[in-house]
Amino acid sequence: MQIDVKTACEKLNAADNILILTHQRPDGDTLGAAFALLHVLIAAGKKARVSCHSGFPARYGFLCGGYAPDESFSPEFTVAVDVASLPLLCDDFEKHKGKIDMCIDHHKSNSMYAKFTLLDTDAAAACEIVYELIKGLGGKITTAVADAIFAGITTDTGCFKYSNVTARTHEIAADMIRFGANHAMINKIMFDTKSRGLLMVEQMILKNTKYYFDGRCAVIFLPSGLNERYQVLDDELDGISSFPARIAGVVAGVTIKASEDLSGKFRVSVRTASPVDASKICLSFGGGGHANAAGCTLAGTLEEVTEKLLAAIQKELESC
Amino acid sequence: MQIDVKTACEKLNAADNILILTHQRPDGDTLGAAFALLHVLIAAGKKARVSCHSGFPARYGFLCGGYAPDESFSPEFTVAVDVASLPLLCDDFEKHKGKIDMCIDHHKSNSMYAKFTLLDTDAAAACEIVYELIKGLGGKITTAVADAIFAGITTDTGCFKYSNVTARTHEIAADMIRFGANHAMINKIMFDTKSRGLLMVEQMILKNTKYYFDGRCAVIFLPSGLNERYQVLDDELDGISSFPARIAGVVAGVTIKASEDLSGKFRVSVRTASPVDASKICLSFGGGGHANAAGCTLAGTLEEVTEKLLAAIQKELESC
Repeated sequence: MQIDVKTACEKLNAADNILILTHQRPDGDTLGAAFALLHVLIAAGKKARVSCHSGFPARYGFLCGGYAPDESFSPEFTVAVDVASLPLLCDDFEKHKGKIDMCIDHHKSNSMYAKFTLLDTDAAAACEIVYELIKGLGGKITTAVADAIFAGITTDTGCFKYSNVTARTHEIAADMIRFGANHAMINKIMFDTKSRGLLMVEQMILKNTKYYFDGRCAVIFLPSGLNERYQVLDDELDGISSFPARIAGVVAGVTIKASEDLSGKFRVSVRTASPVDASKICLSFGGGGHANAAGCTLAGTLEEVTEKLLAAIQKELESC
Repeated sequence: MQIDVKTACEKLNAADNILILTHQRPDGDTLGAAFALLHVLIAAGKKARVSCHSGFPARYGFLCGGYAPDESFSPEFTVAVDVASLPLLCDDFEKHKGKIDMCIDHHKSNSMYAKFTLLDTDAAAACEIVYELIKGLGGKITTAVADAIFAGITTDTGCFKYSNVTARTHEIAADMIRFGANHAMINKIMFDTKSRGLLMVEQMILKNTKYYFDGRCAVIFLPSGLNERYQVLDDELDGISSFPARIAGVVAGVTIKASEDLSGKFRVSVRTASPVDASKICLSFGGGGHANAAGCTLAGTLEEVTEKLLAAIQKELESC
């Protein structure tokens, strides 16, 4: 059942011993939303705890460093933040079925798995919704809360770069800076720090980028085992998919990734510049996504997979 | 003589045939400020013209593409925007001495060369000041004006990433988005597009980055002739200086650039993470700058220059 901010506030006010769940492989938005809410609930005299199935990554130490959850805590009300569907929580997600009381989310793809869902698909980040919730709760925006909200917003907007940014996004950022958010430090950690391992991966990719259709399409290939060979985290490698589409003149950027868990198959990510439609390209292989970013899985040798993709891309380029 | 926004508005209201000058090798802030002001002055029924000594770069086509200045225009009042000192206007700057009526700027280093200077060193961009000026003039913020102001702000803040960003910066960005600024397109052009030439330069740099002091210092070297060899613009190469300081663990990032116009000398750029002081390192070689970004010029062979720099950096690292 969908609820509005006012109802969500009433339910949180009435609850105690609140367990806040983030999605697996957490990013700044799910963590920011969880910790902002945690601080406000605790300040309101409630017991609350944040839990992430796959733990808290070191780079988010500024958000959750030193966080020691109360082990005696016994949850009575469970809130999932920035979690579009149960499988995103953890691999053995079946145990959560019917047990999530509230979901706070901004994904169009939300599967409505929670008893009550506060969904705003116009919000660039779940943290934009948590900000409204905190205002509704009359919660105090401490520096820690401001840092958490800011981290979520900057994460999900690529540091205010993406088209999901609205005037409201900037207004909330302004407010968080007024409340003391360490915006420059957070942006530096999130967007201006690269590990030496990632730099080596980038170097390898730069050397092997292939161009097609007069430079309108660029294709990169990520072999398996990069994490071990270069000591890079999945988290860091994720950003690589946006790499080929950034090259000047490229309107279709393709990343082909050897998949360790899908032997003999490749995970493909396609990023496009309008009017080239990434979802059309991926749909023809049973995948899907948005107009400018989509994905699919393909079987075959690397040569076969590349050939199939290029044929689909050529068709799409010709139709534009 | 320093003036406030109100006085600046009075002077612009009283003037006509207004020549707006940007600095050489223009960036999004000087161009954004100039074109925002141009549109508002023309809408107010005045004659006005923007001029940049070194022309308008192609990448700013969204701001000045198709701009055809009236050749019969005869300037009566000259305004320099985002120009901290006369030599930044052009090489033969002597001709402008005493002839700039108004300067609108945000640089601490402004040399007060204009008759009237509207200076706000707390503004992240000159466009923040132009925004206040337009409000004072009662000018209409059309989409073109919103694009120009947004472009200036996003340029000078590295897409809202740097520490010069304030709550006001985000509030003005919110306002510009409300007035129709094509924020995602502008950010894509400014921050998400790399030429294939620049990618080749980056590949070369990645391969040759040298690390010192347990990875706390990274040094890159830019040989001369990169522009011709890789077909890259100065504008694109400028961003390279921030490259070494972005590497995880690096607190002092150094770029040594062979200088074509200073034969046998090297231009050095130093970027640091606090508390390491870049200006202290550069001051010892007669250079200067800010605590986190400074520069100097050094003579000698590349080996000698590197050795001198490393000695100064070691001293600074040990004192922190």
